[in-house]
Amino acid sequence: MLKYQEVAQHIENEIQTKNLSQGTKLPSVNELVAKYKVSKNTILQTLKVLESRSIIYPVQGNGIFVRRRKRKGYITLLENQGFSGDLTYIDVVPKVICFKVVKATEEVANNLQCTLDDDVYFVKRVLSIRDQILCLEESYYKMSVVTFLSEAILEESIFQYLEKGLNIKTGFSDKYLSVLKTKGDISKYLELPKDSPMLLVEEIYYTNTGEPFDFAKIYYHYEHSQFFLNG
Amino acid sequence: MLKYQEVAQHIENEIQTKNLSQGTKLPSVNELVAKYKVSKNTILQTLKVLESRSIIYPVQGNGIFVRRRKRKGYITLLENQGFSGDLTYIDVVPKVICFKVVKATEEVANNLQCTLDDDVYFVKRVLSIRDQILCLEESYYKMSVVTFLSEAILEESIFQYLEKGLNIKTGFSDKYLSVLKTKGDISKYLELPKDSPMLLVEEIYYTNTGEPFDFAKIYYHYEHSQFFLNG
Repeated sequence: MLKYQEVAQHIENEIQTKNLSQGTKLPSVNELVAKYKVSKNTILQTLKVLESRSIIYPVQGNGIFVRRRKRKGYITLLENQGFSGDLTYIDVVPKVICFKVVKATEEVANNLQCTLDDDVYFVKRVLSIRDQILCLEESYYKMSVVTFLSEAILEESIFQYLEKGLNIKTGFSDKYLSVLKTKGDISKYLELPKDSPMLLVEEIYYTNTGEPFDFAKIYYHYEHSQFFLNG
Repeated sequence: MLKYQEVAQHIENEIQTKNLSQGTKLPSVNELVAKYKVSKNTILQTLKVLESRSIIYPVQGNGIFVRRRKRKGYITLLENQGFSGDLTYIDVVPKVICFKVVKATEEVANNLQCTLDDDVYFVKRVLSIRDQILCLEESYYKMSVVTFLSEAILEESIFQYLEKGLNIKTGFSDKYLSVLKTKGDISKYLELPKDSPMLLVEEIYYTNTGEPFDFAKIYYHYEHSQFFLNG
């Protein structure tokens, strides 16, 4: 971990443990420099990171302030780490429904920028939290990037494996949201009556060199999921 | 407009008009310095802005690349300007249902950080695009910040008025999303049968000094709305 990340982590922990409320003024840049014994540049980088993660906000000529959301139990839509925010992987229990290698369909090829001849891992899982069904997930992983997956891995955090096992660095993601009625298999896996409301989130994850490697369709149980977004 | 914003605008326009596809390599920092006759620092600021707006992505040691989404007709969830992305205010036709001054309810006071004694503007509008109902919007504006509103203003872009008329600078926003079934008045205004799927987006907008001034509940017609999110 780089120095500025370490300091960022430390400040974030402090906000949490001291339970500082939104609008609380933090020490000045110079005070932070003195406190953490690092350069001014490091502190400026630290603050940029904390601001981009919506943990602080700067007010010109006045200082740096704590930013916190109030509501608990919401899934953060923005972080590129699979589930995050209040819901961590510790809470999420995956059940693998299907795991196989398939040829890319037109939809998959289009989103993963590959051809219909390319092999992709297809993974279908139901994810639950505290015995409540959160979502049905259908993911397609491009095998030229995600060179190996196994059923054992799918029962844990895939993103942690991709990052630490395969050294795949996520660069950015596109997410498309729409609201639909459940039907067929989806109702069955979500254990909802046909025509129930449902949020479909389609996600495309790219490596830090801009190559798409994961296309996922996630169908959320409307009674068990709520989402949060920092702007 | 500052120099780096001007250059950012210019590069964004070029990507649009030349219809550059995702992954297209852009000129190097030095080439951009020469082209726009500005300092290296200005170009670095320009690129930071374009990256944060998901218009480009840098690849370490390799260059700067175009980032573009493929799907049309999606509302961008992240920009703090009301509707944006493909849908601009030009397309959105508001119809005012109700406009009055009320005392803050508990929910409103909680989200706007005011008391139950404080006056707020209450605005209820139905927004349509090309004769299709997009959403029902219930907004509460804190009168200590939003000192004046009128029905004529509500028929145009409120955010433009707040920024240019009242000089309110939006700093950041919190958004909470949940999926529900329509009922009562909401079904009526969305012209949907009772128990239809619906996306509820609750938004809180803060000034650049961290004061909440707008709390809005927006109920989206599920057949007429889709959303996009850059991560």
